[in-house]
Amino acid sequence: MQDFVEAAEAAAEAAGQVIRPLFRSALLVEAKGDASPVTEADRKAELAMRDLLRRRFPDHGIWGEEFGPERQEAEYLWVLDPIDGTRAFVTGRPLFGTLIGLLHRGRPVLGVIDQPGIGERWIGLAGERTRFRSPLGGAPGCRPCARLAEAELSCTSPDMFEPKDRPGFERLRAAARRVTWGGDCYGYGLLALGLVDVVAECTMKPWDWAALVPVLEGAGGRVTGWEGETLTLESDGRVLAVGDPALLAEAVDLLRN
Amino acid sequence: MQDFVEAAEAAAEAAGQVIRPLFRSALLVEAKGDASPVTEADRKAELAMRDLLRRRFPDHGIWGEEFGPERQEAEYLWVLDPIDGTRAFVTGRPLFGTLIGLLHRGRPVLGVIDQPGIGERWIGLAGERTRFRSPLGGAPGCRPCARLAEAELSCTSPDMFEPKDRPGFERLRAAARRVTWGGDCYGYGLLALGLVDVVAECTMKPWDWAALVPVLEGAGGRVTGWEGETLTLESDGRVLAVGDPALLAEAVDLLRN
Repeated sequence: MQDFVEAAEAAAEAAGQVIRPLFRSALLVEAKGDASPVTEADRKAELAMRDLLRRRFPDHGIWGEEFGPERQEAEYLWVLDPIDGTRAFVTGRPLFGTLIGLLHRGRPVLGVIDQPGIGERWIGLAGERTRFRSPLGGAPGCRPCARLAEAELSCTSPDMFEPKDRPGFERLRAAARRVTWGGDCYGYGLLALGLVDVVAECTMKPWDWAALVPVLEGAGGRVTGWEGETLTLESDGRVLAVGDPALLAEAVDLLRN
Repeated sequence: MQDFVEAAEAAAEAAGQVIRPLFRSALLVEAKGDASPVTEADRKAELAMRDLLRRRFPDHGIWGEEFGPERQEAEYLWVLDPIDGTRAFVTGRPLFGTLIGLLHRGRPVLGVIDQPGIGERWIGLAGERTRFRSPLGGAPGCRPCARLAEAELSCTSPDMFEPKDRPGFERLRAAARRVTWGGDCYGYGLLALGLVDVVAECTMKPWDWAALVPVLEGAGGRVTGWEGETLTLESDGRVLAVGDPALLAEAVDLLRN
């Protein structure tokens, strides 16, 4: 697996080299919220990652947000999101990230959450303790939190829920100690540092969650669907992450419609 | 005024030295969302700033979030918020800030927004161009954006509005191109970099907005109350900030109940 980790880190570097120059650039200021320069960086960064991974592992599949799947039936499938948190990126918030996940027969075995702006990186590998480096400090490891009444909830936006999912989320939110908005993949990263206890979100694609699973599991947490089920490529996009597995039953009970 | 700027920067450094070691520390992880370690850092940081400013300017007044006013009737009044964005701080998001404002006969003439985690600093001085430094890039200067339909709106949380203020905010939000949640003082900093176009918030105390005024005005923007009125120590806590002054009339029209 060390080859895979090295490749994932090299892919993160390659994406960062494309993405960093655009962050807070005059081009983005002039674009005034129009995401097309970001889409271009997104595409270039994904191509750079695909190229690197294809050369190193010609038998592996790749599925990226921008260019879709290739060899999707391969034993190993890389799942890529060059810029997770486009809105954060466009408005200059350093909470966006590059997500690199690797599935083995559909099961996430490697995940990298890279924050190219600040220079933070979470690396999760199935069966190993999650690693983290950052100039801002923080240590990997979810914290104990067995009751929602004590839990910090994080969620990117109250606007992300479909009407059918809103009541479940509202029940969870009412039960949690507090909610903090914003964050995209960063919220899950903070969960892996023991600073957030639960994240519940919707409309998550495989490239949004695949990298998160090994990072959070290697920190002692769990990532599932809203029914507590294991996430698969066929999942419905509703994702629940908890730092303390003891929270799972209570959260699922509230989210379930 | 150069003495005042130097003192404000020294105060920011003094606060940062207290605050930085606590960010993402094991103490905060163990506190599990309990803000008392943050309150302690808040108080220590404010005392450090007060001590420094009192020594340099014994005739000036000081008003801080934690310890209230002293010599509030002085010609010059320092207004301090050691940790703006407590919730962001507690959950490990590097978007909190230290706010240092200076009022001259009630008018904000100097403002520092300091981000001690990342190491970013905005310095605004009445009649001068705002300065900004950051390892993440970005240049001071609000961007042109004359219509709300093209505007990026930023707001800390949908939960911050009192029922009477919600309809006005919802009208503004519906008219804006998009909203991004989270940020506290950071949203105003991004406005001064031309990455956000409008911020509307409530329950803002003088220590929440005093530092923002010179930073935003020196970047070409405007900060007012929801009626478009100049902010004073007696203001009702509803704050509107726009990057392009041409946005002001449209925003006030929507916010007004």
